[in-house]
Amino acid sequence: MKLKSPYLIKPHAAVKLSRLSTDETGGFETDTAAAAVLTKHREQLANLQEVFYASQKKALLIVLQGMDTAGKDGTIRHIFSGINPQGCDVAPFKVPTPIEARHDFLWRVHAQVPPRGMIQIFNRSHYEDVLAPRVHKLISPKTVRRRLEDINEFEAMLVDNDVIILKFFLHISQKEQTARLQSRIDDPDKHWKLAEGDFKEREFWPQYEEAYNDLIPATSKKHAPWFIIPSDRKWYRNVAISQILVDAMKSLKLEYPPPTMDPTKIKL
Amino acid sequence: MKLKSPYLIKPHAAVKLSRLSTDETGGFETDTAAAAVLTKHREQLANLQEVFYASQKKALLIVLQGMDTAGKDGTIRHIFSGINPQGCDVAPFKVPTPIEARHDFLWRVHAQVPPRGMIQIFNRSHYEDVLAPRVHKLISPKTVRRRLEDINEFEAMLVDNDVIILKFFLHISQKEQTARLQSRIDDPDKHWKLAEGDFKEREFWPQYEEAYNDLIPATSKKHAPWFIIPSDRKWYRNVAISQILVDAMKSLKLEYPPPTMDPTKIKL
Repeated sequence: MKLKSPYLIKPHAAVKLSRLSTDETGGFETDTAAAAVLTKHREQLANLQEVFYASQKKALLIVLQGMDTAGKDGTIRHIFSGINPQGCDVAPFKVPTPIEARHDFLWRVHAQVPPRGMIQIFNRSHYEDVLAPRVHKLISPKTVRRRLEDINEFEAMLVDNDVIILKFFLHISQKEQTARLQSRIDDPDKHWKLAEGDFKEREFWPQYEEAYNDLIPATSKKHAPWFIIPSDRKWYRNVAISQILVDAMKSLKLEYPPPTMDPTKIKL
Repeated sequence: MKLKSPYLIKPHAAVKLSRLSTDETGGFETDTAAAAVLTKHREQLANLQEVFYASQKKALLIVLQGMDTAGKDGTIRHIFSGINPQGCDVAPFKVPTPIEARHDFLWRVHAQVPPRGMIQIFNRSHYEDVLAPRVHKLISPKTVRRRLEDINEFEAMLVDNDVIILKFFLHISQKEQTARLQSRIDDPDKHWKLAEGDFKEREFWPQYEEAYNDLIPATSKKHAPWFIIPSDRKWYRNVAISQILVDAMKSLKLEYPPPTMDPTKIKL
């Protein structure tokens, strides 16, 4: 699988999020122009997914990460509504349950890996285990390093077993986060989304940024790459991600599987 | 939940599939007219699903059954593409795996019951366990009766625990099945769907019909009703089912949950 994208992070590249654009629009001048392309991408994805499902050659695992309000839910809604739900699942990873916490950190993740033919979207992921615990100093730097190695080995094993892994960091500015939280405060229909924790975590923005600066190049691999997507403008974020997905799925050149019986010999 | 539909089967009603229309179009004269309504229903479902997901008050379980080629996959693709995949899952039930077969027949089904806030679609279901095994005389009439009771008690328990169950039998004629199989034979892109078993099972059409004639009235309950949907015309099938879903979800009158914190006290 060959992927070209200005947002692809090469293995061990130096990443400094604070220097990377959050509000780029990739040449699109208006959101309407981008919306038309997104519509086209959605149709392409729907068609590509049909063959993907039928062929059962590959599984596709899409990892979405980002600061709070970065748009993980919106990305799922805008890009994947339109895909046959029978071939596409979403696994949201929240604070581990007591039973999950008694296992190694990849246990609950492994259980959600897609089988061949399926697309699975991780809304947050195993990468959370090298974020909050690191920021709040619940794990040592040594444990962080070991977990990053564990992640690389785990993902390499999946790739060897026909799983395609594409990882997206939705990159927003702190200013944009403030604006998004403000709009939740202003809209009574969104009050239920307000969580005390989100407002506390905001204060650790630089520490989260640092954690991502380390983990992205450490875990971006040729067959499990990270993309850092400028995400202040939701319409550009959607089209930038869907473009990468269309390219990736097209490049597989999948075909419908051969028949298991001879169609000429069927008498109805 | 109050549901009115010409296709609703009352508990213990006498059902004879061979006398029920398969090609009705409910007043629609063209497929384009129906397509416009389906588009509207899809938008309504997308909106209703957002509140459904947020409120976490109820779970929705949709059971799809029908003869081979009746259109279970097509129903899922046409009605539920458009719904946020984060709030909607599909569980296909195939021939039980060796481990599944060592459990009671509801074991694998129970594991797939949706949590509150989610919509789960069963592509085939626990009803298969009173179909093929009955038709092929692998279980006694007594076992069939006991399984039907087990199903009723299981579903009643789910209903007591906030699961809404809506069950759809996609009703096609044998002639329509022949036409659909022929079109699979004629279309090389669909050859992979041809399965020896399907052609053998066709010969048992009357026995399957008889099994459905018994099971539908025996398991149609006020809170877990069966609908027999005329399904020879795919466009009418889609609109008939989506209408029932829209009505059901609307009748819940769900609202966004109250905030867990006081929005006026947040300082950004």
